[in-house]
Amino acid sequence: MPNDSPFTLGPNSYGKSGVRLVHVGRDSARHEIRDLTVHTALSGDLDATHRTGDNTGVLPTDTQKNTVYAFARDGIGPAEAFAERLARHFVDRTPAITDARVGIEEHAWTRLGRHSFTRGEGGELRTADVHYDGQTAAVASGIRDLLLLNTTDSAFRGFRTDEYTTLPETDDRILATAVTATWTYTAAPASYDTAFDDAREALLAAFADTYSLSLQQTLYAVGERILKAIPEVGEVRLSMPNRHHYLYDLEPFGLDNPGTVFQAGDLPYGLIEGTVRREAT
Amino acid sequence: MPNDSPFTLGPNSYGKSGVRLVHVGRDSARHEIRDLTVHTALSGDLDATHRTGDNTGVLPTDTQKNTVYAFARDGIGPAEAFAERLARHFVDRTPAITDARVGIEEHAWTRLGRHSFTRGEGGELRTADVHYDGQTAAVASGIRDLLLLNTTDSAFRGFRTDEYTTLPETDDRILATAVTATWTYTAAPASYDTAFDDAREALLAAFADTYSLSLQQTLYAVGERILKAIPEVGEVRLSMPNRHHYLYDLEPFGLDNPGTVFQAGDLPYGLIEGTVRREAT
Amino acid sequence: MPNDSPFTLGPNSYGKSGVRLVHVGRDSARHEIRDLTVHTALSGDLDATHRTGDNTGVLPTDTQKNTVYAFARDGIGPAEAFAERLARHFVDRTPAITDARVGIEEHAWTRLGRHSFTRGEGGELRTADVHYDGQTAAVASGIRDLLLLNTTDSAFRGFRTDEYTTLPETDDRILATAVTATWTYTAAPASYDTAFDDAREALLAAFADTYSLSLQQTLYAVGERILKAIPEVGEVRLSMPNRHHYLYDLEPFGLDNPGTVFQAGDLPYGLIEGTVRREAT
Amino acid sequence: MPNDSPFTLGPNSYGKSGVRLVHVGRDSARHEIRDLTVHTALSGDLDATHRTGDNTGVLPTDTQKNTVYAFARDGIGPAEAFAERLARHFVDRTPAITDARVGIEEHAWTRLGRHSFTRGEGGELRTADVHYDGQTAAVASGIRDLLLLNTTDSAFRGFRTDEYTTLPETDDRILATAVTATWTYTAAPASYDTAFDDAREALLAAFADTYSLSLQQTLYAVGERILKAIPEVGEVRLSMPNRHHYLYDLEPFGLDNPGTVFQAGDLPYGLIEGTVRREAT
Repeated sequence: MPNDSPFTLGPNSYGKSGVRLVHVGRDSARHEIRDLTVHTALSGDLDATHRTGDNTGVLPTDTQKNTVYAFARDGIGPAEAFAERLARHFVDRTPAITDARVGIEEHAWTRLGRHSFTRGEGGELRTADVHYDGQTAAVASGIRDLLLLNTTDSAFRGFRTDEYTTLPETDDRILATAVTATWTYTAAPASYDTAFDDAREALLAAFADTYSLSLQQTLYAVGERILKAIPEVGEVRLSMPNRHHYLYDLEPFGLDNPGTVFQAGDLPYGLIEGTVRREAT
Repeated sequence: MPNDSPFTLGPNSYGKSGVRLVHVGRDSARHEIRDLTVHTALSGDLDATHRTGDNTGVLPTDTQKNTVYAFARDGIGPAEAFAERLARHFVDRTPAITDARVGIEEHAWTRLGRHSFTRGEGGELRTADVHYDGQTAAVASGIRDLLLLNTTDSAFRGFRTDEYTTLPETDDRILATAVTATWTYTAAPASYDTAFDDAREALLAAFADTYSLSLQQTLYAVGERILKAIPEVGEVRLSMPNRHHYLYDLEPFGLDNPGTVFQAGDLPYGLIEGTVRREAT
Repeated sequence: MPNDSPFTLGPNSYGKSGVRLVHVGRDSARHEIRDLTVHTALSGDLDATHRTGDNTGVLPTDTQKNTVYAFARDGIGPAEAFAERLARHFVDRTPAITDARVGIEEHAWTRLGRHSFTRGEGGELRTADVHYDGQTAAVASGIRDLLLLNTTDSAFRGFRTDEYTTLPETDDRILATAVTATWTYTAAPASYDTAFDDAREALLAAFADTYSLSLQQTLYAVGERILKAIPEVGEVRLSMPNRHHYLYDLEPFGLDNPGTVFQAGDLPYGLIEGTVRREAT
Repeated sequence: MPNDSPFTLGPNSYGKSGVRLVHVGRDSARHEIRDLTVHTALSGDLDATHRTGDNTGVLPTDTQKNTVYAFARDGIGPAEAFAERLARHFVDRTPAITDARVGIEEHAWTRLGRHSFTRGEGGELRTADVHYDGQTAAVASGIRDLLLLNTTDSAFRGFRTDEYTTLPETDDRILATAVTATWTYTAAPASYDTAFDDAREALLAAFADTYSLSLQQTLYAVGERILKAIPEVGEVRLSMPNRHHYLYDLEPFGLDNPGTVFQAGDLPYGLIEGTVRREAT
């Protein structure tokens, strides 16, 4: 089944997404639990399968999934290390694969008893992303869906106005966001788990401490604080939606609203994204 | 615009759903935050609007929304009490309204600082539902999206088999669920907040303590424990999906799986629902 | 493991939710496809499993799932009939089961070729719900997530006002809703498929034809039209959220807005629910 | 409020996401409806706001939202053109802004009457993305959430195996996917609307016509067909999750399964992504 396509295959990858892995540590009566969702994406010389359906070089996504579960047999360790083990395996063992990306999202559970745990539906995620190209494993860690809210110490003034401006300046507003943060390592930290805890703590402290003149300023402060906390981090990427809270107008009902009653908005939302780097570009 | 419909109007209601109310308590420098989603549903003599579009008796859902925000001006208190204030207002002040149902879902935030808070996206909800019919306010409280997981002490044996049975019996499985619990009060407790905390604690303890021979048994134990903990509760309704965790077969890879590596399932899921009552029926 | 609970077991059921069944009809080269999600819920004498974990009378939800797939081997037919076959099987073959409820949601696919199909993600659902109690099978059919929108011929005036009213009257607004309709049969129609098509057509026609003085009036007109179209329908239950579209205020920009530019709202939304019946109550 | 940060601000942007715009064309009694969700993202010299909260160069996201609605006053036209108008406005009128990206998702409604429309919840989206850097407007169009399914003519054989392989080869499987396609223009086509229709038709035809030896092959065929259909397209990016359908094992019930009864999977899913280009790289 030849393919005489005059066109070119550009960037491509294939993998398994949403591999739901739960690992129970039973080394003692006090069980441990890990709850991961793993995503794999492999790249390499894949012209044949795209052009003619020749799958000789294709490691099926089903096999990738099996590998995830098989590798979990001996324990997980930090998500970053587990992702790296998998990424190295895919590239080092399969000639046609030159690059592997493994992404992991992890839910933390709160202990209730020796073998009982709880958490809320959804919730904050810890993320790990590793890209291995046969030589180097680039490691990034992160947090997703961490909601933060300041009830005050947030202003927004002095912005540019044009004929479409109706927003009044404010000296006191609710600042609420759902942080996605990803930081990349230039060298492996002594412990990915400790580094994660330090980054999370830095993030929370920066958000709580900053008197915010703009969400951008808060974003920068968060990135800066993570860089200061972890010397091995080279760059912090942040996505911080501005979850607007509108002061509800109670005047029609003969009531004042001294900054207490808000309508939480849904759509639209502001979206502030930025990167803070250790080195000058 | 007369309507000569030969048909009858059956049960009906109208209201505002998804009223997103955030209240900031600023009585001291240590702010308090409440995060509620309120739903209202009113019933009464609504034949005219249904048959002819005569809206004389209709209190617009927009007004209902305004009322929620206006009532929040003086503070919220327990969600149950706030719902009851609203329900009574709608019925007592509007002749055409005979019944009001007010439902509230509340997200708890964790304090980070004097005016900073955090929580994960989604997460566990506290619920309050009040139905006022002009005479009595029936109050129910609840929890939604509380995930619980036991890594062991769960068996499932001795069930009925037929020609469509393939499930093997097991003495040791993961038991995971996302609890929705609703308990109705026969009398107001001293404090709805304390009662909620007690019910939640009873629920967690029952789940963690019960050696489960079936999810139904765990459900019953949870209901029982809540009834024992709070004398004013007359009935507990529980919905406990069985979030299956499948032991992954590692044998093809030459590995054993001593109860450590699981695939978390999504669809389908078992769904166990039941009610436990104080009084004999 | 005796249970000396002083409490009573109230209403309860157990079953499998989210059974994703796709059936391919290969009787000819022109394949047929059916895409169903099936939910089962069984009730009966279940005191033993709740109180002591004695599962003798429990038909596992896994077996219920298997039964769904096995029954599909011989074809599906109308969803209502498939649900009834399943419900009757569970009750008639298992002594401890007195009631079975089987709910089905069906996605329709559009044919692209002899064995190729398309549809959009999500989309409108056809529903079927059967409750069999050992004697009678009560059948309901329905539609879910059908979005309807009129750009005009919708007014809302003459409503009750109080001190919390700010909504102005309007003679021309967008009326948009996402219909959930469920109609119950008092007798089996000649064809459930034809009846569904007729009901859907009646629903659309009533929505398009009605000059709406309130969403309640539109709801009633829809119910009426379905009752008129299908003599075997005894009752129509309707849930019609009012998906608000707000005329955007362009005046600050020196522009008028002659009913053309709207902001589609999300939360909150009005929720209008009602029942229209053939017989007087 | 000086900021002596030793760190560097990397790539960043700010904008409004989820601007829900509905436009009603009332030029005749036969109304037209457009249903868009608009996202804006602006970049430029934003060091000041990030480092010191000096917002002089910041055009608030609220103003961006207002601009979207104001620009809609004179009609929308093709989504691509509307996005370009907005992107050019933001950059050309605001000194501190060097780059604007405007993304649009559009829902098509089906006409029911002169001013009545319907669609299913969710559904397929048409997308338009424009990036304007002060000189060039790069335009991309696309489709999202278009579900496609072939009941046969899909095989998967001859793939690489290793010690983690358990997947059997197959000559006949269901191939189902939810296509996200984005094609970039090297020159403006005569009509974006016609080009979209042509691309969609090419996509459907390629999917329906291709005997698939791998989903990669189908992906490539789709890209190729779009490139052939529209000369102005330079590149097609495709994301095609493999929505697995598992043949249900009916043997335990004494039944065969001649390719008719399938369990639709949810998680995990294969994910195949690739780019097809007109020019050699």
